[in-house]
Amino acid sequence: MRYVSYTHQGTPAWGRVEGESIIDLAGYAPDLKTALERGLDAAPATGPKLPRAEVTLLPVVPNPAKIFCVGHNYESHRVETGRAATDYPSIFTRFADTLTGAQDPIVRPRVSSDLDYEAELAVVIGTGGRNISQADAMRHVAGFACFNDASVRDWQWHSRQFTPGKNFPDTAPFGPELVTPDEVGDLDAVRVQAILNGTVMQSATLDHMLFPIPVIIEYISRFTPLSAGDVIATGTPGGVGAKRTPPVWMKAGDEIVVEISGIGRLVSRIADEV
Amino acid sequence: MRYVSYTHQGTPAWGRVEGESIIDLAGYAPDLKTALERGLDAAPATGPKLPRAEVTLLPVVPNPAKIFCVGHNYESHRVETGRAATDYPSIFTRFADTLTGAQDPIVRPRVSSDLDYEAELAVVIGTGGRNISQADAMRHVAGFACFNDASVRDWQWHSRQFTPGKNFPDTAPFGPELVTPDEVGDLDAVRVQAILNGTVMQSATLDHMLFPIPVIIEYISRFTPLSAGDVIATGTPGGVGAKRTPPVWMKAGDEIVVEISGIGRLVSRIADEV
Repeated sequence: MRYVSYTHQGTPAWGRVEGESIIDLAGYAPDLKTALERGLDAAPATGPKLPRAEVTLLPVVPNPAKIFCVGHNYESHRVETGRAATDYPSIFTRFADTLTGAQDPIVRPRVSSDLDYEAELAVVIGTGGRNISQADAMRHVAGFACFNDASVRDWQWHSRQFTPGKNFPDTAPFGPELVTPDEVGDLDAVRVQAILNGTVMQSATLDHMLFPIPVIIEYISRFTPLSAGDVIATGTPGGVGAKRTPPVWMKAGDEIVVEISGIGRLVSRIADEV
Repeated sequence: MRYVSYTHQGTPAWGRVEGESIIDLAGYAPDLKTALERGLDAAPATGPKLPRAEVTLLPVVPNPAKIFCVGHNYESHRVETGRAATDYPSIFTRFADTLTGAQDPIVRPRVSSDLDYEAELAVVIGTGGRNISQADAMRHVAGFACFNDASVRDWQWHSRQFTPGKNFPDTAPFGPELVTPDEVGDLDAVRVQAILNGTVMQSATLDHMLFPIPVIIEYISRFTPLSAGDVIATGTPGGVGAKRTPPVWMKAGDEIVVEISGIGRLVSRIADEV
């Protein structure tokens, strides 16, 4: 199954994708996060049908309680950033107001020109929990989506803590769809790509993750409870703009695509903050 | 004025402190965060009066949307941690489920014995905003409270990102009262202390902050919008347990006090996770 969050005629809702239509399921739960709490399996099979072209997509979960990002989780990116290998995943956080929908621009803030892309697979938690074991972890996953962990690099590197450069509003496109695991098949073979103005800048399969999804879920859930709708952006492959010579920064009008095989294609334009 | 959040006979509420009584103001707003959005000045002067001894204190703002912590913000702590001087404050975040009330224990998780104290002044935002200037910053402050940014040091240092060690549940006592700026007077002279089992472990006045409150507010509000009820824990003085020889870790039964002159005394017991 594939799910989206959207506004239709100004009203926020969510629904199931059926080809070029959306089955509006707002009658079951007001938003996708609440639906995840109640269980997507129990959502009705039918509902009002909308043409997909009539809705405006929101971040696929617009209001997660917790958003985790994993740093340096592909060997190719770890090497390009010069980080030592570590025994534990590097975890930082985003606020929900950094998320944008699949039709919205990434906003380059006035205070920086160092705006970079990071193509990532996002994991959305379905069943929450604490101290989730690796063996159980995938049972807590509701599905996957594309995520662009776009970063304001100079602000990211003001200190060792990444918070500032990862939390400018409207810098993290998230969507277009939540794709349930049964649709994806073999995760190891899934390819994550960033494509900037038509050029592939990042490309790796998920089997190159240093900390695979079950390890990340186990690790995070040992220090904090996970809840339905929580998001884990699982890290980015090598090839970011900051580590190229000269650096490649995104600017107004650029098109950046996060494409993940079997999961989706997330196309964002860059716009300057007004 | 001094405000508290609490439960009374199982019902969450908030109110104004009058000596040994509390004026229940839940009729004006359901919680202190909502009251801050509506404006504390417009809250009624009177309401149901409760004996303070009958309530159980909650974190003074139980549900902030954003909690920021400033790292290495006193020279004495920067030096003991061996960090280089920086041009920008180091900012990390906490989730709201890490907060505890002034009568609750700090929970030492089963996975670690490296539990440390950090006495800090917390700033609570009243009027939100973006791109707040230093000159305007103090007008956005609703008040102050004591904060213990208790840290699970081994998990904090798993990678460069502090997230894990700062986000175990029930590790951040916050309270007991929100104290409005007019009650405090000269901030520079305010003294922050940590007292462990009767021994003063940290002690500094606020004029020793490397980044004063207006600078921190300006900096944070340049990358993310601030809202009523948001919390900024402004950093801790030198003297943390981790940097002593041998290190001093808090264990079950210990009493740790954060005392801030003119603002309050936040007494917490350590309890092992069950």
